Amino acid sequence: MAEPKVVTACVLIIGDEILSGRTQDANLAFLAQALARVGIRVIEARVIPDREDAIVAAVHAGTAQADYVFTTGGIGPTHDDITAAAVARAFGVPLCRNPEALRRLQRQYSAAELNPARLRMADVPLGAELIDNPVSQAPGFRIGNVFVLPGVPRILQAMVGGLLGRLKGGPPLLTRTVTAFTTEGSIADGLADVQARHHDVSIGSYPFVRDNRLGTALVARSTDATELERAVRAIAGLLDTLGVEPVIEP
Amino acid sequence: MAEPKVVTACVLIIGDEILSGRTQDANLAFLAQALARVGIRVIEARVIPDREDAIVAAVHAGTAQADYVFTTGGIGPTHDDITAAAVARAFGVPLCRNPEALRRLQRQYSAAELNPARLRMADVPLGAELIDNPVSQAPGFRIGNVFVLPGVPRILQAMVGGLLGRLKGGPPLLTRTVTAFTTEGSIADGLADVQARHHDVSIGSYPFVRDNRLGTALVARSTDATELERAVRAIAGLLDTLGVEPVIEP
Repeated sequence: MAEPKVVTACVLIIGDEILSGRTQDANLAFLAQALARVGIRVIEARVIPDREDAIVAAVHAGTAQADYVFTTGGIGPTHDDITAAAVARAFGVPLCRNPEALRRLQRQYSAAELNPARLRMADVPLGAELIDNPVSQAPGFRIGNVFVLPGVPRILQAMVGGLLGRLKGGPPLLTRTVTAFTTEGSIADGLADVQARHHDVSIGSYPFVRDNRLGTALVARSTDATELERAVRAIAGLLDTLGVEPVIEP
Repeated sequence: MAEPKVVTACVLIIGDEILSGRTQDANLAFLAQALARVGIRVIEARVIPDREDAIVAAVHAGTAQADYVFTTGGIGPTHDDITAAAVARAFGVPLCRNPEALRRLQRQYSAAELNPARLRMADVPLGAELIDNPVSQAPGFRIGNVFVLPGVPRILQAMVGGLLGRLKGGPPLLTRTVTAFTTEGSIADGLADVQARHHDVSIGSYPFVRDNRLGTALVARSTDATELERAVRAIAGLLDTLGVEPVIEP
């Protein structure tokens, strides 16, 4: 049986404020979880500055390696919002004022408010399709397999909600987690054996501290539900053998 | 006068758990702020999976474009901790058990606890120099211009504290912030003019919501303190002209 195709995505987080540490990104975790629900796996994310050449290079790298590319940030009205122009350049097409985007901005702003800066938010690469923005009208857009989204998390989240149904994903990656109050080093040798015996499952190990006690979360991921359950039982069995109580999360 | 050289860094965040959205990265913001204090500017960050080929490629890309590369994650005792092996491969050197790293682990663990999995934490690329870990002994390492750090934020933070004095930075990037209760779109045209008149200063615009009011933070950055002050006065002047009260943060 041929393995079902894994559908992949790259996320490009555009913004000097993330790279400087001034702002904590919250969009990668949201996008990764939302995309996973429709069977799309984020395989790389890049945080890049508000510089056209950096954006163009990252769009090319992303489209070369993944089925989808999602960008966040840089589509507002100010001079540092250059994502639309950079994506147009990456695709070798001109940036054009989109009549439908203009109509949406006209619904949101009075004629006096719709100054040259705000009008720029209606400029998208030629051939792009708009992505609805239910919060503040200024749309995102899709061109080829690149989806251009804003950086403000609550607006991005609203836009992604309307987008997910249109994306074609692969088999969803299923996840099960087993936690135990033990250290990674105590179980690592046995866990490596479990991983070696379960090729179709990827097992990650993540230490945590809870109630001042050291614990380890073992996260098993697979597109095959049966293999996943087998791996979870093997992990629980290993912990039992080592005298540690496993908690299999529901 | 020759422009002082900007010293740059790439950050590689290694871990399936960040890419899946299960864990929220906190290390990029910490590293960016800590490095900025010693005059090192983060110009790109990549979040990559626990896969050797992905790590090797990202190390090569990082060393090609920046003065320093910092990796986070993947240096623990479990089978998914493959950063040291991947960095060794990126540098074309073997992975070797480091006698000093072994001594440190022997101080932390009893002979019974020091199983094969924990011993792996003493393996570093040939020629690497250890980075002290005051929290849990297992060291990070430096090879060439690549600094390999753990993913657990409180351990990474302790290790970076001891490291910063050894890094050679350029002139620090100075930052001033002006905030105002106005929307980006209302000031964007004037702000673009201010930016155009202040080449040596980079001005970013970031919307926020506070007390249910829309505001914009204007962040000016420069290595030149005099030019920075001029730009801040120009931003404040623009806001005054537009009838908006500027708040210049101290």
